[in-house]
Amino acid sequence: MSTQKSFAKGSSAPGPVPEGTIRLYSMRFCPFAQRARLVLQAKGIKHDVVNINLKEKPDWFLEKNPLGLVPTLETPSGQVIYESPITCEYLDEVYPDNKLLPSDPFEKAQQKMMLECYSKVVPYFYKIPMGKRSGEDVSALEGELKEKLAKLNEHLKTKKSNYMAGDSITMIDYMMWPWFERMEGMQLKHFLDGTPELKKWTERMLEDPAVKETMHAPDTHIGFYTSYIAGKADYDYGL
Amino acid sequence: MSTQKSFAKGSSAPGPVPEGTIRLYSMRFCPFAQRARLVLQAKGIKHDVVNINLKEKPDWFLEKNPLGLVPTLETPSGQVIYESPITCEYLDEVYPDNKLLPSDPFEKAQQKMMLECYSKVVPYFYKIPMGKRSGEDVSALEGELKEKLAKLNEHLKTKKSNYMAGDSITMIDYMMWPWFERMEGMQLKHFLDGTPELKKWTERMLEDPAVKETMHAPDTHIGFYTSYIAGKADYDYGL
Repeated sequence: MSTQKSFAKGSSAPGPVPEGTIRLYSMRFCPFAQRARLVLQAKGIKHDVVNINLKEKPDWFLEKNPLGLVPTLETPSGQVIYESPITCEYLDEVYPDNKLLPSDPFEKAQQKMMLECYSKVVPYFYKIPMGKRSGEDVSALEGELKEKLAKLNEHLKTKKSNYMAGDSITMIDYMMWPWFERMEGMQLKHFLDGTPELKKWTERMLEDPAVKETMHAPDTHIGFYTSYIAGKADYDYGL
Repeated sequence: MSTQKSFAKGSSAPGPVPEGTIRLYSMRFCPFAQRARLVLQAKGIKHDVVNINLKEKPDWFLEKNPLGLVPTLETPSGQVIYESPITCEYLDEVYPDNKLLPSDPFEKAQQKMMLECYSKVVPYFYKIPMGKRSGEDVSALEGELKEKLAKLNEHLKTKKSNYMAGDSITMIDYMMWPWFERMEGMQLKHFLDGTPELKKWTERMLEDPAVKETMHAPDTHIGFYTSYIAGKADYDYGL
């Protein structure tokens, strides 16, 4: 698409998905959608991105995916795929260059078990800042997050590897990254002080071309988040 | 194993997993573990089953899987795999006979999207009977379950297929089955009266050899469930 601006209710639908490409319906600040953006970039897949206003979704988008979720992929033949881990695995299977998931069934299962485990960490990245804003005591939540991050730190330490599943970036790194990118904006970055291996991992991730290509600066995340919690989400913030 | 009886804290660990087989740590009445049992049966995989007392888990089991979950798979080389969809996909990849997941990436993604959607139906199979027991008004929950089952019915009707993804049983049917098996015991079977296609699907499923091999009669489910809600789960009920 020629625009990054979000499509809202009442907007005209974008044209058909060009042959030889794939389309991602996304939202510029959605960490789940960023997973798919990371995979598209890392694998060098020819694609376009249509950003969706998630508060006022266009009818034509809801016709494609009645759940209205991002990320959603659409192929030139009109196949629709959603749920971030499913979209990412689909992309990795259809586009064989730069495989991100291991071909060995046990190693692949290991990545999925890690992802399942990580899905229980994600809620803390929201609960803590939101709890703090409303003046709640979040010390128990903070303790739990610390414990979970310590486990990830221990994993890297025991494995003696640069990335979550070895010495090169694989799918699991990209699945985890988007929330770490937001830690500074969410004022959670100090949690990494007690987890030096994990901190080094975030520094390595920041050097990755796909991460560089898809990321926003902390201030931009803050800008969007501020508009979001004020109930006036500015999906085009910073454009 | 020569016994179906559950292993509790203090029990001796079973011997090593014999070469050429795989071991399933299970619980006879766990619907998630039944998913793996269905796949093992349907694919004719040589395996043994070690049933775990989930209230008093043996230390040796927690050493293998600190999360203490069933299903857990263990290979002769000591690889450990858990989370029901991950175990089932692992089995389907490692044992190529009788493939249950499609090889086409989009069709595979479709099965996973259906499973994700179905995971939002599962809680109702617990919430409604438990709510009823404690005298709560469950009419809203019942309405929601009806709506969700109607969607599955519509799916079968539109697809004009005998099973969820075509005219033969595939992975998604086995992923969904265990809760339907328990509907009669949970006094939820009348919900199928309004969904004739889904009812026919359950009747077809009951004819499947893997379902027949892994299922319990409604009375047995009731017997276990009664012991479970009384806080004295009898994992060996009916043996």
